[in-house]
Amino acid sequence: MNPAAATALRPSTKGEETRAQILAAAVQQASAAGFESLTIGSLAEKTGMSKSGLFAHFGSKLELQLAAMDEAARQFTEQVFMPALKAPRGLKRVKALFEGWLTWPKRASLAGGCPLDAASREYDHKPGPMRDAVIERQKQVGRELAKAVQMAIETGELKADTNATLVAFEFMSIVLGFYRADLLIGSDEAVKLARAAFERLIETHRR
Amino acid sequence: MNPAAATALRPSTKGEETRAQILAAAVQQASAAGFESLTIGSLAEKTGMSKSGLFAHFGSKLELQLAAMDEAARQFTEQVFMPALKAPRGLKRVKALFEGWLTWPKRASLAGGCPLDAASREYDHKPGPMRDAVIERQKQVGRELAKAVQMAIETGELKADTNATLVAFEFMSIVLGFYRADLLIGSDEAVKLARAAFERLIETHRR
Repeated sequence: MNPAAATALRPSTKGEETRAQILAAAVQQASAAGFESLTIGSLAEKTGMSKSGLFAHFGSKLELQLAAMDEAARQFTEQVFMPALKAPRGLKRVKALFEGWLTWPKRASLAGGCPLDAASREYDHKPGPMRDAVIERQKQVGRELAKAVQMAIETGELKADTNATLVAFEFMSIVLGFYRADLLIGSDEAVKLARAAFERLIETHRR
Repeated sequence: MNPAAATALRPSTKGEETRAQILAAAVQQASAAGFESLTIGSLAEKTGMSKSGLFAHFGSKLELQLAAMDEAARQFTEQVFMPALKAPRGLKRVKALFEGWLTWPKRASLAGGCPLDAASREYDHKPGPMRDAVIERQKQVGRELAKAVQMAIETGELKADTNATLVAFEFMSIVLGFYRADLLIGSDEAVKLARAAFERLIETHRR
């Protein structure tokens, strides 16, 4: 954030609310049309604000994009990790994470699917701050997921020689397979396949 | 294809060559920047042809996009399915498909990754002929893959009660997980995880 925007924002609750509204709209748009579609102009139109009003919050397109990615990550944490933390550590939590992961884009009304997943594709081969940001967030998610699997080893529910990194990779793979199958064969069939794959994954490693 | 383009194309080997060159460039561009980036103007610039020359081959942006998707599917078949058909039917062929799938974007010099995978994301929530086309192609690929798995059941290598559709779903999930991990942790580590996941998948069902 540039200093002017920071100054404009800090003292005002109204300013924070407006910023939150802009970012909610930005995440919606990024889900449907990609982060590259996020311009000060398109967001001004979408939120009914003036371009100069937008500029007071985000000094550039890149700043807006990075803030939208932070907001997407925040929503993901709120929708997937926070509820799962209410489940006891171990397999129950891993399972809660899995179920939450499948449904979170719909629960967050993100018609275009998971924006972080979309961003990985969008910036896969476009070096720059957005690519760095999405890689960093995805890596962090991977570490958190592996940690949850590790806890299920520590509770004794999974075998002691379980490779938590591999299980986390397979978990993520099934989620990605589900997003694809959701498009091809519809949600009901896709959920059945994803759950069966997840069950097989857990059964293989269960003690 | 509009009738004028068809007439212009059919009798001329030169015309067919030019068309193939345009489509090769189009698939490259779609891999890196998406199928929506494919305009007559951008392809004219990329291939050094005139816009009117491009129009003689493809009467509209949509026609160009659909032809590029056909070409991407053709390249995929050539790079993944054709070599695997040289392996004997059964597990060897399933394994050949898996190895070919992981590496085909690189072997086809598609810097932006698998264009059909990219298109599933791009058109996931954009109804229209491109979405219909990518869904149709992805479904076809899924059926071919399930058929290859079914053959490994028929050879007796996989258990008789193996669910070929589920194995095909898991196979595709691992491929998608690999594409993601390739970005996050690099090719070498990603290949190790993908192969370990694939081995576990096969071992679970091996007779």
